Amino acid sequence: MVAEGPFPPRRATIYRALLMASIMLSTMVAALDTVPDMWGEYYGASRLLLSLTLAVLTFDYLVRLWQAWDSGTEDKPVRSMLAYATSPYGIFDFLAVVPFLVGEALGLPRDGETIFGIIRFLKLARYSPALETLGAVMMAEFRPLMSALFIMVLLIVSTSALLYFVERDVNPSFASVPHAMWWSVVTLATLGYGDVVPATALGKVFGGVVAILGLCMFALPASILASGFTEEMRRQSFVSTWHLVAKVPFFAKLQANQIAEVASLLKVYRAVKGEVLMREGDLGECMYFLVNGQVEVLGRTGTFLLKQGDFFGEIALLEQRPRTATVRAATRCQLLILDAREFHKFVSAYPNLLDAIWEIARSRMAVKDPANPSDET
Amino acid sequence: MVAEGPFPPRRATIYRALLMASIMLSTMVAALDTVPDMWGEYYGASRLLLSLTLAVLTFDYLVRLWQAWDSGTEDKPVRSMLAYATSPYGIFDFLAVVPFLVGEALGLPRDGETIFGIIRFLKLARYSPALETLGAVMMAEFRPLMSALFIMVLLIVSTSALLYFVERDVNPSFASVPHAMWWSVVTLATLGYGDVVPATALGKVFGGVVAILGLCMFALPASILASGFTEEMRRQSFVSTWHLVAKVPFFAKLQANQIAEVASLLKVYRAVKGEVLMREGDLGECMYFLVNGQVEVLGRTGTFLLKQGDFFGEIALLEQRPRTATVRAATRCQLLILDAREFHKFVSAYPNLLDAIWEIARSRMAVKDPANPSDET
Amino acid sequence: MVAEGPFPPRRATIYRALLMASIMLSTMVAALDTVPDMWGEYYGASRLLLSLTLAVLTFDYLVRLWQAWDSGTEDKPVRSMLAYATSPYGIFDFLAVVPFLVGEALGLPRDGETIFGIIRFLKLARYSPALETLGAVMMAEFRPLMSALFIMVLLIVSTSALLYFVERDVNPSFASVPHAMWWSVVTLATLGYGDVVPATALGKVFGGVVAILGLCMFALPASILASGFTEEMRRQSFVSTWHLVAKVPFFAKLQANQIAEVASLLKVYRAVKGEVLMREGDLGECMYFLVNGQVEVLGRTGTFLLKQGDFFGEIALLEQRPRTATVRAATRCQLLILDAREFHKFVSAYPNLLDAIWEIARSRMAVKDPANPSDET
Amino acid sequence: MVAEGPFPPRRATIYRALLMASIMLSTMVAALDTVPDMWGEYYGASRLLLSLTLAVLTFDYLVRLWQAWDSGTEDKPVRSMLAYATSPYGIFDFLAVVPFLVGEALGLPRDGETIFGIIRFLKLARYSPALETLGAVMMAEFRPLMSALFIMVLLIVSTSALLYFVERDVNPSFASVPHAMWWSVVTLATLGYGDVVPATALGKVFGGVVAILGLCMFALPASILASGFTEEMRRQSFVSTWHLVAKVPFFAKLQANQIAEVASLLKVYRAVKGEVLMREGDLGECMYFLVNGQVEVLGRTGTFLLKQGDFFGEIALLEQRPRTATVRAATRCQLLILDAREFHKFVSAYPNLLDAIWEIARSRMAVKDPANPSDET
Repeated sequence: MVAEGPFPPRRATIYRALLMASIMLSTMVAALDTVPDMWGEYYGASRLLLSLTLAVLTFDYLVRLWQAWDSGTEDKPVRSMLAYATSPYGIFDFLAVVPFLVGEALGLPRDGETIFGIIRFLKLARYSPALETLGAVMMAEFRPLMSALFIMVLLIVSTSALLYFVERDVNPSFASVPHAMWWSVVTLATLGYGDVVPATALGKVFGGVVAILGLCMFALPASILASGFTEEMRRQSFVSTWHLVAKVPFFAKLQANQIAEVASLLKVYRAVKGEVLMREGDLGECMYFLVNGQVEVLGRTGTFLLKQGDFFGEIALLEQRPRTATVRAATRCQLLILDAREFHKFVSAYPNLLDAIWEIARSRMAVKDPANPSDET
Repeated sequence: MVAEGPFPPRRATIYRALLMASIMLSTMVAALDTVPDMWGEYYGASRLLLSLTLAVLTFDYLVRLWQAWDSGTEDKPVRSMLAYATSPYGIFDFLAVVPFLVGEALGLPRDGETIFGIIRFLKLARYSPALETLGAVMMAEFRPLMSALFIMVLLIVSTSALLYFVERDVNPSFASVPHAMWWSVVTLATLGYGDVVPATALGKVFGGVVAILGLCMFALPASILASGFTEEMRRQSFVSTWHLVAKVPFFAKLQANQIAEVASLLKVYRAVKGEVLMREGDLGECMYFLVNGQVEVLGRTGTFLLKQGDFFGEIALLEQRPRTATVRAATRCQLLILDAREFHKFVSAYPNLLDAIWEIARSRMAVKDPANPSDET
Repeated sequence: MVAEGPFPPRRATIYRALLMASIMLSTMVAALDTVPDMWGEYYGASRLLLSLTLAVLTFDYLVRLWQAWDSGTEDKPVRSMLAYATSPYGIFDFLAVVPFLVGEALGLPRDGETIFGIIRFLKLARYSPALETLGAVMMAEFRPLMSALFIMVLLIVSTSALLYFVERDVNPSFASVPHAMWWSVVTLATLGYGDVVPATALGKVFGGVVAILGLCMFALPASILASGFTEEMRRQSFVSTWHLVAKVPFFAKLQANQIAEVASLLKVYRAVKGEVLMREGDLGECMYFLVNGQVEVLGRTGTFLLKQGDFFGEIALLEQRPRTATVRAATRCQLLILDAREFHKFVSAYPNLLDAIWEIARSRMAVKDPANPSDET
Repeated sequence: MVAEGPFPPRRATIYRALLMASIMLSTMVAALDTVPDMWGEYYGASRLLLSLTLAVLTFDYLVRLWQAWDSGTEDKPVRSMLAYATSPYGIFDFLAVVPFLVGEALGLPRDGETIFGIIRFLKLARYSPALETLGAVMMAEFRPLMSALFIMVLLIVSTSALLYFVERDVNPSFASVPHAMWWSVVTLATLGYGDVVPATALGKVFGGVVAILGLCMFALPASILASGFTEEMRRQSFVSTWHLVAKVPFFAKLQANQIAEVASLLKVYRAVKGEVLMREGDLGECMYFLVNGQVEVLGRTGTFLLKQGDFFGEIALLEQRPRTATVRAATRCQLLILDAREFHKFVSAYPNLLDAIWEIARSRMAVKDPANPSDET
């Protein structure tokens, strides 16, 4: 990942927020500038806002150029800087500021300001894997997508010809096949602007069939993309879980393939400080492994801390009874969650891990329940 | 769960229905009040209805305050009452009645009545896990949702700029980028109001492409939410099945992880009194375990009752023949259903449970079929 | 299933087609009757058509009454006939004809004719499991559906109040909350009639957000119903496969639970007479078991017939080479298909079945390939 | 597959592109011809373009006829030619050119030109499996689709009757049931043209309910088709993977059923020349088997080539550390990808293949890492 400015973590977060705000404000001003008499007496203020946001973006571009120059990954700073400047991100960063600054000096036409203002928005892509994910999905599902696209074009072409022959004599909106195609697209995409509507009875019958066909066929590409997108997101989250599992000491003895298997059973969860993870008396539906951070256990016999690598919440799963303690995140922390549904797969695959869990669970129960041997609900 | 007023179960059901009706009626009256000359001569009746519903809601709030005061979970009643009053439900209950009553006394402006009338509707959230489930899904799928949102905003921004440049000269609806954005949103969401429509041929070509893109891209968040929602609902139902399985004596000898495995094979079903669960001669597709309540078996040799923990319907699965008896719910009852599809997983995983089932099945067949040794179809 | 009139199989098919046509024509005439001056000079013809279709429906009702009287399932014919007459199907059959006939005699108002004409259409439900399946899905998914419905109603109520406050001063379409609700429903369902559209800039911003929310939230019930419907359809098809597998001699030695397992790997296929099931030289993707009917194998060494219980297409799967013969359905036949994907699960679970398949495959290859020992591609 | 003209592979690609362009241009000209005064002074140019595209299509038809005559699959050339001419593709190829040529000679009416111009587009079906896949899905899901269709028709019929009775007195758009049906279709398909909108309060309430019902019910066929289409596409890709796996020497010792199992774990990927497949220092998420083509490995100790049958990327999976080398496609190549998620299934099923992988991995690590024994991140 590209570093977030020349700042330590805390400040980097602030810097990032500032940068994202600048991008969004700057694009917004560029869009609003196209409204005639938009600003009225606030014109000066809008120019000031635009200048401020552009100053931030210019600073960001310079910082990133300098970072590339300075970065240790290659010995030749010029080549490293050029590598950044010609990468997609570098080009967006460049287009976000330079044309505007040049334009200000030389008198850029207003349309140029609008175009580059919109392009500035693409800088946000740096903070979201969405476009890359979408690209990967489109690559992976290329053939099904092209198939669905072909069906769509075929439907548009044939239904527009059909309606053209039915409607052309009475309905000027269907005066030619390209006119009818506009109706076909608007209908098959279930948009239904209503600017073009069949007028004859036969046209309405065919129109109804086309509407239903559209509903069915145009769902194909949407469904292919949506399932591919979800799948790809899940794959990415599996890989990050996989690397996290390897950091938990409790799983240290597992082999690579077993870690992969465990990773497919666990889910990553990020808790903020103070968040209550489980509450005494609730039904227990999962157990937790603490990857980093600390949680505090508020039991009947007092409060104690759990640290990186510990687990908790296992008693409710082993004994099928309500939670015996409340657990709260003492710091920001990353956890791995093992669902009740996955628990049985886990313990039948790793009986020795189950033994280890039981041992700790028994020692915990021994501490807590001496005066309360049966608290089932 | 919050108790339903100070009532025994049967009355609690009535109380709940009364409360839900009051909430809905009260919101409806508040919405209709904004229609000028809505009530005409029925104005007095509408005020009476409003007062009645508010009386119920006020009573409910006082009861819940008193319940919180009285509840045994904490020794300090004031703190317990405050805990309720500052909880989300407590705040909704407060907002549902107090501002209105205060307003009636001090002369609340009519808008206030409308707003608090709408807020009253949120009290219904207490009776549905929907909002909590939706919140959990949004937390769990936060990153995919943000990715999909980013793609949507990017599409809106870029397509509106595109159509602005294409249409602005001939079409006042595209006079500025923000104007064009309205078109983009309406088109990408496949709404198609028709108040803004491209007029040029090029605009229509791009418009058609935008419509199809919208169809594909805007399906992403819908699909993420829908699959997350279904998954979360399934998870909740697994947990409730899991707790139910442990109550069936037949499964008593299983260990915690085996109960989880069995739970994933079973489905919960609630039958009303008199419901026919299976009919003699039908093809058998599942067997049943009775969690509570009673069912009556109407066989050829007479009628007998089955009670909590019994199972039935196993003969059709074991012998692959039609049902040999009709079974009807004698009381309201909860059942666990084991589908034909899951049956073979079940019996290969638990051969000793299969033996137990066979034993009972054989004794039942011996009783029923002495005069009818072969009734295969 | 209710028998199809008092006819042998072949005639029953004709009778069924006649009945379905009568139902559809009769409903169509009733719908068209509401168009003023619909028939013109064809009025007499339309009455004749209506009378003919009603004669068929009346005949059908009488036949079914008589069948119920005559059926052997109960000794008391009157009770049996009443059971039919008071069943849902019986009531639809009654409503389809009797009110109209009574009306013709006594002078039924035209609206009544329209209503009963529409109701006639419900008789078709007898020939489709769709309504029952949908009902079962709604029962099974009752809680998720109610949750989604609650979210929808909450969104409609809150967004309509929001737009009411934003738009009411300038836009008479938002004059009251109920007026605004019409806009909310039309927008959230992504209908977008365009009769009510926000006019202010703020209204359009909120309107856009509402449109996107609608897209996401209103997908929940659609997705719940769609996945439930698909699942239920798959379950029904599993059960029918299950009963079919037990009829194939090749699987006769398997136990009940193994038959269920095999059934989950197979798919039912119905071929018409003369249909080509596989073609020599094609890539082999599945093998077939013949449940009933006959197929002819057109190999290089001649043509021979396969009968009920035989299998074919196994060589391409075992040896991974193109089909060695063309196979055509000699009669109408039912087949079970074992996909390449499921084949390996099948053969590792049932090694002795694999041996049996190999044995036949080897004998077939020995016959066919003596002069052609290697025809891999 | 039908051969692509009488050309060697490289030229066949060019020929195919020419043919597809001709089809699309020819259909486009036919569609634009229906616009009055479309071409103006470019009329001559448009005729030239049309003649050129038709010349290509005519040439293609003649070539295919000749190829069928010449092909060696049957001894009787006339029968072979007739087989092509009467196949669906042959008929489309015929309709694409012959009627137009005949028409030019005899004076075909302009409508005929339009119709045959649209039909020409169907020739593209040869290059996409989409229509065949869709047909297969419709066959496989016939019963669910008919069920969903029945529900749709039932909804249209009943909601139109309902709105007819509610609206007919005040709203001429609902003057008859068929008129109301147009509204029903437009609403249930969530089209919402807005040409017909309920006017009464009660009509709007029912209209809102119909809109929501439409959203839920009309998703059924879309979802059935979409999931069937995705499933069918996946099945086709499994079969092609299956045939590819058998070509990799590394898997040569596996039996047919094991190859099927391996195939279900692998994904096919086609890389263009110069594409970077993995980059040193990245997290490793998969390993690759090279089916054909060559890749170059750019490690710390130099560059070397891998050829057909080799694998790479295994170290990151075995040792859970970042990539130790960059790999780039030296030629166009086909790869099989084994995901981290599937890796553990693979290695536990085939321990001897794991040993073989480890052996090569160790020899590779021994070469690369002598001076760098621990480079974990």
